[in-house]
Amino acid sequence: MIERIDVAVTPASVPLGLRGAAVVVIDVLRATTTITRALANGALAVIPCLEPEDAIAVRNRVGRDRVLLGGERDSHKISGFDLDNSPRSYARDVVHGKTIAFTTTNGTRALSRVGHAGASVVLCGALINRRAVVRAIEAADAQEALLVCAGHEGTFSLEDFLCAGAIVDAFVQRHPHIVLSDGGRAAALTYRTSAARIADAVASGEHAQALAASGFRDDILAAATLDVADVVPVFRNGELVAG
Amino acid sequence: MIERIDVAVTPASVPLGLRGAAVVVIDVLRATTTITRALANGALAVIPCLEPEDAIAVRNRVGRDRVLLGGERDSHKISGFDLDNSPRSYARDVVHGKTIAFTTTNGTRALSRVGHAGASVVLCGALINRRAVVRAIEAADAQEALLVCAGHEGTFSLEDFLCAGAIVDAFVQRHPHIVLSDGGRAAALTYRTSAARIADAVASGEHAQALAASGFRDDILAAATLDVADVVPVFRNGELVAG
Repeated sequence: MIERIDVAVTPASVPLGLRGAAVVVIDVLRATTTITRALANGALAVIPCLEPEDAIAVRNRVGRDRVLLGGERDSHKISGFDLDNSPRSYARDVVHGKTIAFTTTNGTRALSRVGHAGASVVLCGALINRRAVVRAIEAADAQEALLVCAGHEGTFSLEDFLCAGAIVDAFVQRHPHIVLSDGGRAAALTYRTSAARIADAVASGEHAQALAASGFRDDILAAATLDVADVVPVFRNGELVAG
Repeated sequence: MIERIDVAVTPASVPLGLRGAAVVVIDVLRATTTITRALANGALAVIPCLEPEDAIAVRNRVGRDRVLLGGERDSHKISGFDLDNSPRSYARDVVHGKTIAFTTTNGTRALSRVGHAGASVVLCGALINRRAVVRAIEAADAQEALLVCAGHEGTFSLEDFLCAGAIVDAFVQRHPHIVLSDGGRAAALTYRTSAARIADAVASGEHAQALAASGFRDDILAAATLDVADVVPVFRNGELVAG
């Protein structure tokens, strides 16, 4: 049973040993939102890859007809890839029955950082699946949950911290005696000031502003909507599958 | 003139190049609170030292009658030192006219991390000198202010984030068009939820609870009082002096 929730405010803040914690990687704009949407729309699996050539190797191994290449560099689709990193690109008629070989600047790197460090389970969290993540944490066989904010190129991102706060806040409402780390406490405080206008708060962040300037304004609203997906991506044997 | 305020949520989040920023190091519990109090009470200078032996070397160089050794390891006074890291130990009759060779676990390390990285000025911030820090930032010859949360052994600390938020909040009230980084925005949001009961918020943090358990409960209230000191420690030639 989860007794404590910690929030790593950036990937560099992840403790060295995860001691069997249930880990939730959060990259609201946009990797974990997009992965959640892909699995909710029937993708078989999303395979996080560090580099584009790793994704191409997955496609060559699994089969060209079964794999789509997805992800971004500098927010845009990678040359030769099928899909960018916009959650709206992962519609049911595109991804159903497919495996996605997926590489992004922040989210997939944060996943690889925690993927092999002694966690009992590694999940993907976003605002769109917030409530499902809370239930998955409740069901985890672990004493501690660690919410990892992927951030932006190593630095702090407002939207990931708000999402961590939304998860902590919902968990505290159901388990008032849970112990919170300082990061968990600060994230929940920040979320509570913004809960009534979460889309505005996400849109005020630096990464959202850069995405809007790059033509992805609609992604921000899509990513800032709470509890519309019932899927929690779970990392198993190098793949993210619907939990 | 300052056009943007960034908050490094942990020392690891400090950008590699500080590009002439005005840097404020924040370690509310307790290094920057204690340094501010020492200078407010007439200490000539506080010399941050990485290790106890460095502090002893300072005393041997400057002169035993002119130097006090101060600081902590595991929150307690170091063997052979004159003073611990409690702000209450740095009273006027103890420190007036003295130089303090000072070493702590988090604050002096954060200072040394930013001390030589291209900042235009390095200041110490705390809740007790919040308003004086805001004025010092306003007067700085820099385009950006970077508030560095010293944290606790590399991890995020609630009280340092709250203090950064208190500084950002006061600055925004005087300069509503200032640009905030995501860290600055989140810190200000967190502070605003807690402003009316800042001492309670600081006391709720993990480090405050550990200090209270070690017998330093009175330090928390002393450190959580806003705007009672008019001194801003400034780092010059390896020493912190009253700015």
